[in-house]
Amino acid sequence: MDMLWDNPQSLTVSGKVVDSKGSPLPGVTVLEKGTANSVATDMNGNFKLSVVNKSSVLVFRFVGYLTKEVIADTGANFTIVLAEDVRSLNEVVVVGYGTQKKRDLTGSITSVSGKDLGSQPVPDAGQAIEGKAAGVQVITSGAPGANSSIQIRGLGSINDSSPLLVIDGVPTPGGINYLNTINPNDIASIDVLKDASSAAIYGSQGANGVIIVTTKKGTAGQGHLNADVFAGVQSVANKLDLLNASQFALLNNEELANANKSTNPAYASPSSLGRGTNWLNAILRNAPIQSYSLSYSGGSEKTDYYVSGAVLDQQGVVIDSKYRRYNVQFNSNQRVFSWLKTGNTLALSHDEKPSGGGTVSGALASNPVLPVYNADGSYSGPVGQSQWYGSQTNPVGLYNLVQNKTNGYNIIGSVYGEATIIPGLTFRTTPGLTATFYDTRTWAPENNLQPSPQTQSYLGESYNKSITYNWDNYLTYDKHFGKDHHLTVLAGTSAEANTFNTMNGNISGFASDLTQQLSNGTVQPNIAGTSNQWSLFSLMGRVNYSYKDRYLLTGTVRRDGSSRFGENKKYGTFPSGSFAWRVSEEPFFKNINFFDDLKIRAGYGTTGNQNGIGNYSFASGLTSAVYVFNGNVVPIEMAQSAANPNLSWETIKSTNVGIDAAFLHQRINLTIDGYIKNTTGMLVPYTLPISTGYTVSPPINAGKVQNKGIEVTINSRNLVGAFTWSSNFNISFNRNKILSLDQNSQLFPQGSSIGLNGYLAVNRVGYPINSFYGYVTQGLFQTPYDVMGHATQAGAAPGDIRFKDLNGDGVINDQDRTIIGNPNPKFIYALNNTFSYKGVDLSIVLQGTYGNDIFNANNILLESMSGANNQVSAVLSRWEGPGTSNSTPRAVFGDPNGNSQNSNRYIEDGSYLRIRNVALGYTLPKSLAQRIKFSAIRVYVAGQNLYTFTKYTGVDPEVGLTGIDNNVYPVVRTISVGANLSL
Amino acid sequence: MDMLWDNPQSLTVSGKVVDSKGSPLPGVTVLEKGTANSVATDMNGNFKLSVVNKSSVLVFRFVGYLTKEVIADTGANFTIVLAEDVRSLNEVVVVGYGTQKKRDLTGSITSVSGKDLGSQPVPDAGQAIEGKAAGVQVITSGAPGANSSIQIRGLGSINDSSPLLVIDGVPTPGGINYLNTINPNDIASIDVLKDASSAAIYGSQGANGVIIVTTKKGTAGQGHLNADVFAGVQSVANKLDLLNASQFALLNNEELANANKSTNPAYASPSSLGRGTNWLNAILRNAPIQSYSLSYSGGSEKTDYYVSGAVLDQQGVVIDSKYRRYNVQFNSNQRVFSWLKTGNTLALSHDEKPSGGGTVSGALASNPVLPVYNADGSYSGPVGQSQWYGSQTNPVGLYNLVQNKTNGYNIIGSVYGEATIIPGLTFRTTPGLTATFYDTRTWAPENNLQPSPQTQSYLGESYNKSITYNWDNYLTYDKHFGKDHHLTVLAGTSAEANTFNTMNGNISGFASDLTQQLSNGTVQPNIAGTSNQWSLFSLMGRVNYSYKDRYLLTGTVRRDGSSRFGENKKYGTFPSGSFAWRVSEEPFFKNINFFDDLKIRAGYGTTGNQNGIGNYSFASGLTSAVYVFNGNVVPIEMAQSAANPNLSWETIKSTNVGIDAAFLHQRINLTIDGYIKNTTGMLVPYTLPISTGYTVSPPINAGKVQNKGIEVTINSRNLVGAFTWSSNFNISFNRNKILSLDQNSQLFPQGSSIGLNGYLAVNRVGYPINSFYGYVTQGLFQTPYDVMGHATQAGAAPGDIRFKDLNGDGVINDQDRTIIGNPNPKFIYALNNTFSYKGVDLSIVLQGTYGNDIFNANNILLESMSGANNQVSAVLSRWEGPGTSNSTPRAVFGDPNGNSQNSNRYIEDGSYLRIRNVALGYTLPKSLAQRIKFSAIRVYVAGQNLYTFTKYTGVDPEVGLTGIDNNVYPVVRTISVGANLSL
Repeated sequence: MDMLWDNPQSLTVSGKVVDSKGSPLPGVTVLEKGTANSVATDMNGNFKLSVVNKSSVLVFRFVGYLTKEVIADTGANFTIVLAEDVRSLNEVVVVGYGTQKKRDLTGSITSVSGKDLGSQPVPDAGQAIEGKAAGVQVITSGAPGANSSIQIRGLGSINDSSPLLVIDGVPTPGGINYLNTINPNDIASIDVLKDASSAAIYGSQGANGVIIVTTKKGTAGQGHLNADVFAGVQSVANKLDLLNASQFALLNNEELANANKSTNPAYASPSSLGRGTNWLNAILRNAPIQSYSLSYSGGSEKTDYYVSGAVLDQQGVVIDSKYRRYNVQFNSNQRVFSWLKTGNTLALSHDEKPSGGGTVSGALASNPVLPVYNADGSYSGPVGQSQWYGSQTNPVGLYNLVQNKTNGYNIIGSVYGEATIIPGLTFRTTPGLTATFYDTRTWAPENNLQPSPQTQSYLGESYNKSITYNWDNYLTYDKHFGKDHHLTVLAGTSAEANTFNTMNGNISGFASDLTQQLSNGTVQPNIAGTSNQWSLFSLMGRVNYSYKDRYLLTGTVRRDGSSRFGENKKYGTFPSGSFAWRVSEEPFFKNINFFDDLKIRAGYGTTGNQNGIGNYSFASGLTSAVYVFNGNVVPIEMAQSAANPNLSWETIKSTNVGIDAAFLHQRINLTIDGYIKNTTGMLVPYTLPISTGYTVSPPINAGKVQNKGIEVTINSRNLVGAFTWSSNFNISFNRNKILSLDQNSQLFPQGSSIGLNGYLAVNRVGYPINSFYGYVTQGLFQTPYDVMGHATQAGAAPGDIRFKDLNGDGVINDQDRTIIGNPNPKFIYALNNTFSYKGVDLSIVLQGTYGNDIFNANNILLESMSGANNQVSAVLSRWEGPGTSNSTPRAVFGDPNGNSQNSNRYIEDGSYLRIRNVALGYTLPKSLAQRIKFSAIRVYVAGQNLYTFTKYTGVDPEVGLTGIDNNVYPVVRTISVGANLSL
Repeated sequence: MDMLWDNPQSLTVSGKVVDSKGSPLPGVTVLEKGTANSVATDMNGNFKLSVVNKSSVLVFRFVGYLTKEVIADTGANFTIVLAEDVRSLNEVVVVGYGTQKKRDLTGSITSVSGKDLGSQPVPDAGQAIEGKAAGVQVITSGAPGANSSIQIRGLGSINDSSPLLVIDGVPTPGGINYLNTINPNDIASIDVLKDASSAAIYGSQGANGVIIVTTKKGTAGQGHLNADVFAGVQSVANKLDLLNASQFALLNNEELANANKSTNPAYASPSSLGRGTNWLNAILRNAPIQSYSLSYSGGSEKTDYYVSGAVLDQQGVVIDSKYRRYNVQFNSNQRVFSWLKTGNTLALSHDEKPSGGGTVSGALASNPVLPVYNADGSYSGPVGQSQWYGSQTNPVGLYNLVQNKTNGYNIIGSVYGEATIIPGLTFRTTPGLTATFYDTRTWAPENNLQPSPQTQSYLGESYNKSITYNWDNYLTYDKHFGKDHHLTVLAGTSAEANTFNTMNGNISGFASDLTQQLSNGTVQPNIAGTSNQWSLFSLMGRVNYSYKDRYLLTGTVRRDGSSRFGENKKYGTFPSGSFAWRVSEEPFFKNINFFDDLKIRAGYGTTGNQNGIGNYSFASGLTSAVYVFNGNVVPIEMAQSAANPNLSWETIKSTNVGIDAAFLHQRINLTIDGYIKNTTGMLVPYTLPISTGYTVSPPINAGKVQNKGIEVTINSRNLVGAFTWSSNFNISFNRNKILSLDQNSQLFPQGSSIGLNGYLAVNRVGYPINSFYGYVTQGLFQTPYDVMGHATQAGAAPGDIRFKDLNGDGVINDQDRTIIGNPNPKFIYALNNTFSYKGVDLSIVLQGTYGNDIFNANNILLESMSGANNQVSAVLSRWEGPGTSNSTPRAVFGDPNGNSQNSNRYIEDGSYLRIRNVALGYTLPKSLAQRIKFSAIRVYVAGQNLYTFTKYTGVDPEVGLTGIDNNVYPVVRTISVGANLSL
């Protein structure tokens, strides 16, 4: 800065503002701190400003750069260098058919970088984004190779609410299942499009949000060879406490005595039976996991390449379960001519998932009096009266003898050509492919497992093929008009077609366990197979316009024609618009120092959901049967439902309002979004008059659901300098409510029915989706007078549960069931902290939910005290006489009162706070690494799911989006060590 | 050249010899023509030579460059530029686990460049190499998508003699079937390793020769965008001349009358029936073929890339047959670090092959009196007495109603990393993959096709999976010692493992043709499936040494362990050695002007064949059955053959001697090879004593076969200059002889048995493989006296064939059958001519075989004159009374004499000369092309299989390697137009 003393009072300061590369920065605001006195730099980055005196502080502020303050009389440097704010505003976000700078976004998109994912050594990218994005709920079971479930901004439908997963521009079928086919180390970023304004470019597939995975690419310059390896041990984080043999026998005697049945003479002296077998321990183990990933990448001005290969080998904590995955990824980009760019992404993967034939719930209920093996080495099992010994087949035997295996082979890839037609106008064509072949196999040998020996060996196999082609073609026009106007227009088409084929068969009666091939089966062959197709053709357009970087406007429209839609509704149009106002760019805002950046966003749009529709629901379905006419067996086809030519997508109209703000020299970045999502035309069954003769109710577009919510994300750099500490906190509130089910007052969700207990959950107008359903308990009957004084409750006796007579009709029956809980959390939240000091880095991820209920359905059996199934130790506090308990009922064989009926007895608070991940790493000094020829070496130790704070009494509160805890594969705790090596 | 007059008689000439880039060429021989006076250029390419006088001619000769002659007193240019001989000697040949300059080869390898392939617009690379390589016989049927059959240097075994196909370093399973999965436009070269010295590096897989396909790679510099398109029409080149309706009826009447059976009243006036239906025309059509291929390629010093995509769409000349193939190819190479090179080749392809359910032979035999459709539009068919109307189901109906389809999905790819450890020493690791998924489907609807209506619809499907992993790891050391010694050493390992799974099932009884899914079948489900595995682990080494470029030595050894070999023979060692002497480099040869290059080669080696072995032949096979014990049905397994722990590969010991010579300034290149291949340990069945209880004869390694042959290839540049003409002529002689079949005197080849006629071919000691087998005819009996005067021949009458009483026992029976023909050609040959003048190019490929017999098995039915099947018009010259014919027998229903028995009646000369391909192209002047923004445009018209000179009376003499013409899909003639466009 040159300082010119114009007069004793004031000083004219002039200078130049440049970026870190020395390029001049035009338009930088230069402000005299505490005044409204400001000026902007010219096209060459130069400025001239008169200030009060030489101790005045000059503030240099420019979007995308770190704000800098300099004393006017600093004298030392006449050129101001502004450092880019690499953290946030300048980040590029993938928005679907293009990218945008984060600061230009008008919708709600959360971007998680590969670096953030990489700190967690997990087999699946789904697990790594848990807690990283507000409004995104991720649930993963501990089963090796299990796919994550992801829900964005609540359940938009009683049908399938899975988001769309797009991998390197290729939309994948089947929700987010393909996420698990990608090596997490290959991921450069995951962008989550949450609101309609962002997702409308995906039209009828965008209603549940869109997850866009972008894999890595090479960069020009020196090549890289990276190895990422880790090895760890998984263990079950929490085990249910079960009765031991003595306790079990005592309980069994008590049950039977209470039911006036004879007790087992072998259980006459329960304490002599000791601890017996812990069947849970017998099927669980500490299981190793290891992952090896190797990549090479590089490039020149004309080409770049990224190639990787990986092997993941994971054993399950349940015996006989395993997962192995092989990945290769080929990415490259080429500039063939000055006007033609080409490139490809291609991911090949293969996975193998063997597992045994038992269940965890079977092990939990197994009789602890029985050993795992008989004296002769054979598997033990309940022999004799089942009210004494139970009827659980030896779970270790089932796991070991019955073998299931799935082999999967996946290809996801695309090629693109991008031609520049005139400056600013490009045409891009991208044919892509998602192909999966998978085969399954179940072998059950002839065996003598009691109480249900299998007399004939059985082999079942299936082969499945899903091929999806897609082809996008679009023009993009990107142009600055003057220095204030920036316009980007996209227009194009997208086509997609899928074919799914399956063939399965089974046969029994093999002479030997050594000849496990279908051709060797001798009896009862069965065969089945189907073929399915769907296709989608779309037109799409998007306009982004910004004026002075201050007013940002986005308009999107997509028109989708889908083979799934009925004749009258083949095409749907999905428009959206959004607007952002970067207030901090306004002249009147120049002097507000507190904000480095402030943007207000608002958007509205329509998106569709065609997940739940099925490929042929619009048509009249046929069913095959065999009839006997005149003594001849004749195969026939008959219509089972009426056609609905009006069947179409579910529509979500969504409004989003948000604020992005950066404070304190961008030390704090805050994003707040509020939204209302109104689902209309949700598919509900339409019950036809019985006189039509149809047996199946066709779906119609008539239901309504609303989701409302608020999401807050705070990124802060708490400490900078040698010791750094940065945090990300996000919290998301969502309220879900069914507004209409058309003619239905309530619908029972498929899959929420358990055994004889019927539906545990219900969808009812005025309540959240998947609300729990059952009786309401009012303590226990302590005396016969209590029983008599209560409404008629068949089979009740003292010690039994008193169910509330909700309708006051004096009888406890089906009419007394009601909504008893809500599996949807009031809010979900996460806190990520990262610390670094010299070569040491520490990251801690805490994550939790609040206000959600869990239906602990395991306890229907495990607290039933009505048969010879083992029980959780909570039943030790059971009612054994007046006043002994008012919550855990008496033990009685056969459960005459229905104590195990669905009731709020099983509803528990599912809130939890989990130490999801702690990773402590050390990066060797560069000089040391280079001495052994590496460019960088980092070693780390990490713990996954280290501890969970919860009141939930089941194994783990992360039971799935429906909140029903029933035979869930246990969540695992993993301790691992790993290294990232770069050459 | 500076000329210094040392004395009046002699002149000292000095100068410099450089290559076309101006780099000095050391070691160039400079010779005064007609004298022994010569000198070599020094390290800087300089020379000084005293010559007799200024009119002396100087000859400059250097291997790999075109020889040049200059008059000493030319004065004009003191620097001699030698042009590289790009055509031959400097070419790089792929030799398996490496490359070699063609001039350094010591074994017998033929290399076909992609450019040579490209001139033929064919769907399959197999067809394109037909006639391009001596010793290589290629046979392709006209069926769309049919795989070619390739045989190298004769049949080495009575079992499978397919060569090994290696695509970009990845050995593929199943013979050469994968050749059809590669887009011919992607092929840079096909190298055929013919002798043991070349193929021994492939050990137990190399005995039948090795075909190495190398796909294209990008090159540094300007990018390329190439489009290759063609469209054509295929037609049947030759149709059999069949009887028309009148002729048929007349014949039918005669047949029946001769057999004393009643004739058809409807045929009472044959001529009134007219021409009737030509069933062959009804199932044949002119069929379009089109191919679109697009590639982009390019690179920089650090990386190169080649990416292509292609679609081929071909309809078959037989109705309802079709083929569609999609290809993508991704090839790239990278130099990640100065010491690390990486790269990948990856080919993905998908093909669909639908076809109808009829057969060509069924159409040939169909009754021409019947129309294709009845008056009501339904398919006609023989109704009524079959001796009048025949029993051929309407072929058009079968083709249209019965639908077969195969879908294939293939991946062939590999990744490599090559590290330079010290200069000259590299380590290369290459994991590779060949994966194929294919599914098949047959749908046969319920139909009323006479005479065998199908009463229940039928659906059969199969899913198949073949996955082969391979992993090669090897070190290569390449070093020059001094200027005379050059040593290359290779040592490494190779591993391969394959899994093949298949599942198939079928079910019948569908209510409707609209519900063609397995799940809708109602009766008779069947299911079968198997799983198979094999693996191979190998050690290998190779040494190449050359001294003064004059003495070249190659030694190779491979040691293979195969899961297919028996316990006692798990490992086999396959050594080979070869030597070449470049005579033309000898000082004493310097003055022989005639030869530009002369090399004599000799090699000997051992290779193996494990194709025919089967995965588990060494073990005792089990078979499943169901037995009834005590009234219970019990599945059992029983051993069906004895184990043979000594089972191993078939061994071929082969000697090869060859000469490579270049004459007349390399205008002519001549290669002559002679070889003897002795197969020992050929698998033959070993018949066990019946007392062992085994039902299957296990194979043992005991048979012997010999192949001897000579191959001559002449490449010549007949005209150079503005009008160029070059030729390639190659001719290959091979003699094949079975030397031993162990205890068996003869064996009948599987698949050579036709209907009731039994085996047409036999393998007998002392004869060639697949020799034809049957009776010998001796004209026809003309009179009853002829019959009586001949050996007893049951059923014979005048007009019947007189079979020769070979053993003279007075009875014609099975003992009178003998070897009656040889399907193996005496020689095969081809002549390729290419002409070019300015932008016009013309290429003509002639190709043929000589001396091979064909068993015209179609005529067993089509000349039988014994039932109501239609016949070829040759039967018009049938015997109808004494003296009317001495070759075509009488017509008689039921053939009491067995005129249709296998006999030399059906043996025909299969020699042919075919105009395989004629292509006329025009390349637009560069200026014109550039005016429309292309760098090159060539358009062409091409004809494939234009004309065939042959005496063979069947449809086409190219009937397959076994020489049996039975229901072969007709060879097609294709006329196409195409364009090669470069941007």
